[in-house]
Amino acid sequence: MEQLIQIVDTTLRDGSHAVRHSFTEEQVSAIAAGLDRCHVPLIELSHGDGLGGSSYTYGFSKRDEFLLLKAAAEQIKNGKLTVLLLPGIGTIEDLKKAHDCGAKAVRVATHVTEADVSAQHIEAARRLGMMTVGFLMMTHMAEPEIIAEEAKKMESYGADYINLADSAGFLLPEDVAARVRAVKEAVSIPVGFHAHNNLNLAIANSLAAVEAGASYIDATLRGLGAGAGNTQIEVLAGVLKRKGIDTGLDFYGLMDLAERSVEPLMQRPQTVDNGSLMLGYAGVYSSFLLHVYDAAKKYDLDPRDIMIELGKRRMVGGQEDMILSVAYQLKQQAG
Amino acid sequence: MEQLIQIVDTTLRDGSHAVRHSFTEEQVSAIAAGLDRCHVPLIELSHGDGLGGSSYTYGFSKRDEFLLLKAAAEQIKNGKLTVLLLPGIGTIEDLKKAHDCGAKAVRVATHVTEADVSAQHIEAARRLGMMTVGFLMMTHMAEPEIIAEEAKKMESYGADYINLADSAGFLLPEDVAARVRAVKEAVSIPVGFHAHNNLNLAIANSLAAVEAGASYIDATLRGLGAGAGNTQIEVLAGVLKRKGIDTGLDFYGLMDLAERSVEPLMQRPQTVDNGSLMLGYAGVYSSFLLHVYDAAKKYDLDPRDIMIELGKRRMVGGQEDMILSVAYQLKQQAG
Repeated sequence: MEQLIQIVDTTLRDGSHAVRHSFTEEQVSAIAAGLDRCHVPLIELSHGDGLGGSSYTYGFSKRDEFLLLKAAAEQIKNGKLTVLLLPGIGTIEDLKKAHDCGAKAVRVATHVTEADVSAQHIEAARRLGMMTVGFLMMTHMAEPEIIAEEAKKMESYGADYINLADSAGFLLPEDVAARVRAVKEAVSIPVGFHAHNNLNLAIANSLAAVEAGASYIDATLRGLGAGAGNTQIEVLAGVLKRKGIDTGLDFYGLMDLAERSVEPLMQRPQTVDNGSLMLGYAGVYSSFLLHVYDAAKKYDLDPRDIMIELGKRRMVGGQEDMILSVAYQLKQQAG
Repeated sequence: MEQLIQIVDTTLRDGSHAVRHSFTEEQVSAIAAGLDRCHVPLIELSHGDGLGGSSYTYGFSKRDEFLLLKAAAEQIKNGKLTVLLLPGIGTIEDLKKAHDCGAKAVRVATHVTEADVSAQHIEAARRLGMMTVGFLMMTHMAEPEIIAEEAKKMESYGADYINLADSAGFLLPEDVAARVRAVKEAVSIPVGFHAHNNLNLAIANSLAAVEAGASYIDATLRGLGAGAGNTQIEVLAGVLKRKGIDTGLDFYGLMDLAERSVEPLMQRPQTVDNGSLMLGYAGVYSSFLLHVYDAAKKYDLDPRDIMIELGKRRMVGGQEDMILSVAYQLKQQAG
């Protein structure tokens, strides 16, 4: 029986950022087995930046992700082992290897306005017989109608559902609802949502998505994830249970799993510190941070003012070299 | 000029729980001075359980709270130094002493259905010329219309505004909105709200209160507070700023203050662990926890099942001796 709301666990993917990609086979086995016992339908595992992310740019994984996928696949009896794939970072060859290791679903992720980059990868995944998800990142950077157009492209390539990510943790509940509603109206496949907790709104934004019609919600044990972390799966399970919304999840089981298998390996608490608050407030990439601090020092500016300006300009990853010139302009204006 | 939304900082009161009432004069001076510089209009300081809370039952304060009040009063130039007073724990004599130490406002707190207990204390505060707040705790335990009746009593005693507390962190945003609206309609004085983050909804619940008409919102630096903590003031300042709602607060200043003066003295991160999640899910007093674990052990039950049953029965503080009999009944049902 299909549940009303399907929770997608991404502890072993987005959570990988928070442990600097240090998951071992033993940790993966315990977490994947536990999530499967708790009836999580989709269990995502890969480098935080998707298949092939292990690199100088994105941080090296301690253990080969294909070995980790095999370890997880051995434990998962009911759910679908899922991978993330960012075209340009991961390849179709990586996807085939992941499939050979037991991955049954893939989420193909692009910047919110670049869905066309996903066509070949989505088609390849379909040919492999995998459940295939179109995943739009940084959805705060585009208006709902634009996002709906991009979602329609991914649907036309063969996606089984569209996942909208608030990658910077910028959106407020009403913004999430508007985006989910616009995409729901535009496509005939289900819609999902992926929150970050930078403004401490991950649970509220996930609820707003559900109320607007989303049927897949991403979450992680203890909220493990980049920045301030993701929607905390055991809290979400409890809140949805209280609201009478069925997820099929084992609420107590998720709590126990979080305590026993995730807490001991956390390298920092998933709280909202000043860095993650500013990323969420301004809506900028976490990879900008070091460049921003350098530019602030050079021009004697508050790094927060630079971040807000970058957010206003909707600067995206790859434009790091422009941060210095933005800081220079800010300094001229101030002077 | 009156701000649209007045933020009440309670780092030095509710936050006192999270540091086991260990604040020193030096810490209090730095935090109070910083909050005042950031234009916080009300700065609450006392034992976590209010004036006179330092005791075997509620935990002893490291430093006498009247000395702490004097230290804070010396630093506060613009805001109002505020104390919490729970009739039965603190006395009118304590209030007079606090007033002598520089307190200019008091929040007189009772269980949500026991507003009549506050009459004498509110009247005494008015005679001292203090700003006086009627504070209803555990508002998840009563329906909105009942709460409205209790609020009207506090208004009739002379309260300047009514503060509604979600003491167990149980409420969902729609529950908060319903309570604020009901009280707004019943009284002609402003309404405030005090959140706990046990379901990771403190910011969302505070926003729901504002949207329903609340004009005072409680918050603390880094969310320092009992259980999963309170609404994080620097996050709230940012989110309200983004929504175009004026608080008059210095957003950057609060971030800096949190990092410099509160982070170093935190004894644990303010995250949602299993204990605080269950308190929020079930809606029970944190003081029940030890009794619940004892009863669970005695009857070989999951403590979480006992907590849910206590929540259903709306058990309140002082009824700890009944926890064993509830556990016994649960065991009989199970067997």
